Amino acid sequence: MYLKYVSLLGATGSIGTQTLDIIKEHPDQFKLAAMSVGRNLDLARKIISEFKPELVSTQDQSGSDMLRTEFPGILFTYGEEGLTEVAVFDKTNILVNAVMGSVGLYPTLQAIEAGKTIAIANKETLVTAGHLVMEAARRKKVALLPIDSEHSAIFQALQGEKEKNIEKIILTASGGSFRDKTRDELMNVTVEEALNHPNWSMGAKITIDSATMMNKGLEVIEAHWLFSMPYDRIQVLLHKESIIHSMVEFHDSSIIAQLGTPDMRVPIQFALTYPDRLPLTSASKLNLAQIGKLHFAEMDFDRFRCLKFAYEAGKAGGTMPTVLNAANEEAVAAFLKGEISFLQIEDLIEKAISKHQIIAHPDLETIQTVDKETRSFVKGLY
Amino acid sequence: MYLKYVSLLGATGSIGTQTLDIIKEHPDQFKLAAMSVGRNLDLARKIISEFKPELVSTQDQSGSDMLRTEFPGILFTYGEEGLTEVAVFDKTNILVNAVMGSVGLYPTLQAIEAGKTIAIANKETLVTAGHLVMEAARRKKVALLPIDSEHSAIFQALQGEKEKNIEKIILTASGGSFRDKTRDELMNVTVEEALNHPNWSMGAKITIDSATMMNKGLEVIEAHWLFSMPYDRIQVLLHKESIIHSMVEFHDSSIIAQLGTPDMRVPIQFALTYPDRLPLTSASKLNLAQIGKLHFAEMDFDRFRCLKFAYEAGKAGGTMPTVLNAANEEAVAAFLKGEISFLQIEDLIEKAISKHQIIAHPDLETIQTVDKETRSFVKGLY
Repeated sequence: MYLKYVSLLGATGSIGTQTLDIIKEHPDQFKLAAMSVGRNLDLARKIISEFKPELVSTQDQSGSDMLRTEFPGILFTYGEEGLTEVAVFDKTNILVNAVMGSVGLYPTLQAIEAGKTIAIANKETLVTAGHLVMEAARRKKVALLPIDSEHSAIFQALQGEKEKNIEKIILTASGGSFRDKTRDELMNVTVEEALNHPNWSMGAKITIDSATMMNKGLEVIEAHWLFSMPYDRIQVLLHKESIIHSMVEFHDSSIIAQLGTPDMRVPIQFALTYPDRLPLTSASKLNLAQIGKLHFAEMDFDRFRCLKFAYEAGKAGGTMPTVLNAANEEAVAAFLKGEISFLQIEDLIEKAISKHQIIAHPDLETIQTVDKETRSFVKGLY
Repeated sequence: MYLKYVSLLGATGSIGTQTLDIIKEHPDQFKLAAMSVGRNLDLARKIISEFKPELVSTQDQSGSDMLRTEFPGILFTYGEEGLTEVAVFDKTNILVNAVMGSVGLYPTLQAIEAGKTIAIANKETLVTAGHLVMEAARRKKVALLPIDSEHSAIFQALQGEKEKNIEKIILTASGGSFRDKTRDELMNVTVEEALNHPNWSMGAKITIDSATMMNKGLEVIEAHWLFSMPYDRIQVLLHKESIIHSMVEFHDSSIIAQLGTPDMRVPIQFALTYPDRLPLTSASKLNLAQIGKLHFAEMDFDRFRCLKFAYEAGKAGGTMPTVLNAANEEAVAAFLKGEISFLQIEDLIEKAISKHQIIAHPDLETIQTVDKETRSFVKGLY
């Protein structure tokens, strides 16, 4: 395998730092060429010193100005334009999009146009603009490699298989922090309780999304786009141990599944090494005998209303998934700030969805407009 | 897919009749060209009438003579030579070797020399002569497709993957009819109890082999040859539901598994359709939510001594697996006839193994001699 140059959007986040772990574990295979960082400039400094990227984009100009004086010889940029500069960086072979929120969309589209391979952890890109992203990737013959553990599992299960033979996709769901709580018990849950995920250590937004099951809903929409699968052939299965990361059923009734301990570095590395694999010696091996039992149960769409909303928004199509996503982002942010209760997240999303007039086949500008309108609408609700 | 002509050794057995089910389900894809049958001539007649093969081999001359008068226009042959004629039948693209016992070896080697694709359910062929079969298959560039559910699972899990990236193979074992019995309780078990397998409906010999765990032992040796895997990288895991049919762990710690309801037609069909798949509408779909739980446990080598013998024989190599297999076949036959007790099966195998002087790299003749000598040695023990 030749040395792959990596552009990393969201280097200081959870997926970002784990991507850096993989780059560090295989210095002969990967080199960090460019990255964007968030508000944590101390972590940014540490990463710059260790990985010596050629281009760094900060969230705002002040960060960029500050770091420039500390690291001469490295190019600095900032803001949304900076994200795109990182994404299309000349030397880069593969873009890892691990940034959070809909801000990841434009740089991804630009990187596809520039012919970069895309490893995508940013859900919003596919949820809001799956039709644009997939069309561009097909046109430019660019590989879109999933980093989410569920989509990576499906992608791995599909290696050597033909899409025409797929019967359905089975996404597994841990159930999140509140899996065993009734709706009544959800009335008064705290932010702290919601952030305590049983299996995965992740960022705050995605942990709340797991508790509401919106995370799985967004994944259903992603799977629809990534694997060209109609919604009625995407099933969600409750599997509390998060050991089977997802499955593909073929029309001969054979099912291929990908399993492992919950460790995001495995799907991250698979995206980076695809179509090959490399040893990941630091990952802990799955020991099923030690685990003893794996549990499975039907998904309850009344208990997890956000999942129902997501299927409905996905099937409705057009700008509806953008509304779903923007309303969810605003509602979760409000919950994390203590401004609304946990169950109000669902209510705000439901209101945003109900009042939206769908625009079919939206272009990027329309998506961005609807995104902004939805956010201000939701903000006006509490 | 063009029409594939199938030669079927062991058409009247359990795998044989299920292979015929698959051929029947896809008349545009498969045609039974030639077959061998066992003692059940009534079933043979039914198959001949329905599938109209061009060549049929019976176990002995009388069967052949009788059927010839009833089915003019069909070629009949018999005996061991007949098996080979069926295996190398001119029109045939793929040989399904579903015959029982070491009698399947020579026809398989001849079919490989004739350039036929081999779908193999006959364990003894690989157990006793894996080195010869794999060498011939490599030399003739012939595909060896496993039909056993475990090996098919591994083969399916390996699609699109590279052998160099395999960390280990994990064969699942249901535990057979006596999984929950202690060794003390095994003292007085009956043939009838042993034949009552919890998950799979199979022939008598393999059902007893499941109860002694020799079946899994033979599968370990098969896996060693089919997937060029050292014995210390083949693990057996107790999984009583037989839903995960086996798994492959890669060196990035990712595991790919194949799952399904226990239905041999799925692996049979995969071997026939490989590298494609076809719908198998009559197969029942796996519903994990309905099953609820999957169980896993370490394998106990003291409880299941035959599995230990198989690993030892496999590692010892040379003629030792032939001794293991021949001693087992004789012991199981004796148990089925009520001539020895269940636990004596192990004792006879152990005695045969202990006294054998290994011959390294045996040729076909040596294997056949050792096979015969072992059988008469074991027959002298009870």
